Amino acid sequence: MPKRNAFYAQSGGVTAVINASAAGVIEAARRHRSTIGKVYAGRNGILGALTEDLIDTSKEPAASIRALKHTPAGAFGSCRYKLKGLEESRAQYERLIEVFRAHDIGYFFYNGGNDSADTCLKVSQIADKLGYPLQAIHVPKTVDNDLAVTDNCPGFGSVAKYVATSMREAAFDVASMAKTSTKIFVLEVMGRHAGWITAAVGMADDARTPIPLVLLFPEVPFDEGAFLARVDALTREHGYCCIGVSEGLSNAEGKLMAEAGTRDAFGHTQLGGLAPVLAQFVKSKLGYKYHWAVPDYLQRSRRTLRCSWRANRNS
Amino acid sequence: MPKRNAFYAQSGGVTAVINASAAGVIEAARRHRSTIGKVYAGRNGILGALTEDLIDTSKEPAASIRALKHTPAGAFGSCRYKLKGLEESRAQYERLIEVFRAHDIGYFFYNGGNDSADTCLKVSQIADKLGYPLQAIHVPKTVDNDLAVTDNCPGFGSVAKYVATSMREAAFDVASMAKTSTKIFVLEVMGRHAGWITAAVGMADDARTPIPLVLLFPEVPFDEGAFLARVDALTREHGYCCIGVSEGLSNAEGKLMAEAGTRDAFGHTQLGGLAPVLAQFVKSKLGYKYHWAVPDYLQRSRRTLRCSWRANRNS
Repeated sequence: MPKRNAFYAQSGGVTAVINASAAGVIEAARRHRSTIGKVYAGRNGILGALTEDLIDTSKEPAASIRALKHTPAGAFGSCRYKLKGLEESRAQYERLIEVFRAHDIGYFFYNGGNDSADTCLKVSQIADKLGYPLQAIHVPKTVDNDLAVTDNCPGFGSVAKYVATSMREAAFDVASMAKTSTKIFVLEVMGRHAGWITAAVGMADDARTPIPLVLLFPEVPFDEGAFLARVDALTREHGYCCIGVSEGLSNAEGKLMAEAGTRDAFGHTQLGGLAPVLAQFVKSKLGYKYHWAVPDYLQRSRRTLRCSWRANRNS
Repeated sequence: MPKRNAFYAQSGGVTAVINASAAGVIEAARRHRSTIGKVYAGRNGILGALTEDLIDTSKEPAASIRALKHTPAGAFGSCRYKLKGLEESRAQYERLIEVFRAHDIGYFFYNGGNDSADTCLKVSQIADKLGYPLQAIHVPKTVDNDLAVTDNCPGFGSVAKYVATSMREAAFDVASMAKTSTKIFVLEVMGRHAGWITAAVGMADDARTPIPLVLLFPEVPFDEGAFLARVDALTREHGYCCIGVSEGLSNAEGKLMAEAGTRDAFGHTQLGGLAPVLAQFVKSKLGYKYHWAVPDYLQRSRRTLRCSWRANRNS
């Protein structure tokens, strides 16, 4: 097999561990120097291929590549840029192959979600049509854990740990103040269409330290009455209540609560966060003092959490 | 010196390390068994003394006390409850001394901020007046780092590490997406009257990894024009801009931006967070796509951060 080069690109929202995948690709390539030459990374994802803006990773020392494993976000830059159908975006696909040919790229690693996997397939198909030999390999990534035929998406584990730990620590805080102060805490988490991250908030709780939790999933339409009854019951029983809510929570009509509909539902203007709206809704109906948090990018870029609570407690 | 008991209580907003102070008091007392008997902790702070709801910490094994050092929030419960002047709240001060007398409390450790220190003084004065021998000792605590005659408040360090790390990690995320997506990131931090936590956001930056940062302090009135000019200049130069803002930011008239006034300033309703308002303000004036985060309690309860980025990168 003749030695050929590889191209690697990051796609879509980055995670705390996408650079670890990059390190995996680059280090594996370095272990197979007889078949894989240089690994080029696209600057700002696939845009780097389209504009021929390539980063030659062979110039980076092994220590720098190793350091990627501990560095959050996309070291080479990512992008939100979707190649469309083969006919619709034919010129771009052909441009890709042209750049690949110019740099003798025989391996195309695309690190992203379902869309990137689809792009991989299409690039593979167009290469075949154009008679250009190419291995297109999708490297899975997504915090949402919703990739097709993928049980555990790299990126989900670190977010899951982040939201569970955050809720656990915040719940300790709320519990210690609830007698005279905050009784309701709302944590808004990512996962617009998939409830895996919301479910992970549930790991805040364990048998030794029960925490009164209410979780609102994007897959389950919001039921105001049931929600208020549960929050009230838990607050009366435990003195406080912690709510984990997906940014993608929808109402009974299937409308995103975080969009304009929220104004109608609660009578308040929505500035982009569901947590404050939900917290104020609880206050207006039940009278409990609240706090809320929207960690946003902090949850998908956190690379510095200790291993676990147990380890921490025993250390 | 006759052996007498101690009373310990936590006061006000808890922190990631107030339990470490509790462990310090309890472990030190255990090392001086000839002079200090039992350490009682007040359940929910000073309320526990007023209602004679005391936790006998001598029943806890050494491992549990040691574990406090790694457990965020207030293990014995805290409260927002302020004793007023000696004359105004005389009955309550006398009640305190009565409970102390019933349990032979010779040492009163009060773990809190400036108000708690003031309460310590008053309890000491009333004890003196009533002829009750008592050592009242204030144990400093506050995330805001604004205690009188205290250089570094326990609680500030952990929040400082949290906000600096969070901004650093989020900035990496934004930098990698900025080409086609989010260009502005706003992180709202605690410290309503003191800018120490806001200043700590500045530690996100270092010489090897410059990050375009704008910090908005509660001590400096918000200047819309200067702010927009700086954000625009940094975004044009670096492709993105990160903004750290204190929840206590005020406008030129000295009004808190996070209160009703925000509506007038920006024309939007305010739901309790300044970050979304500021982010939308930037968007409306400069057109940049934004994200924002309000970590709220997460910042003061985070006990599980690794030591440092350097250590992490070298590991």
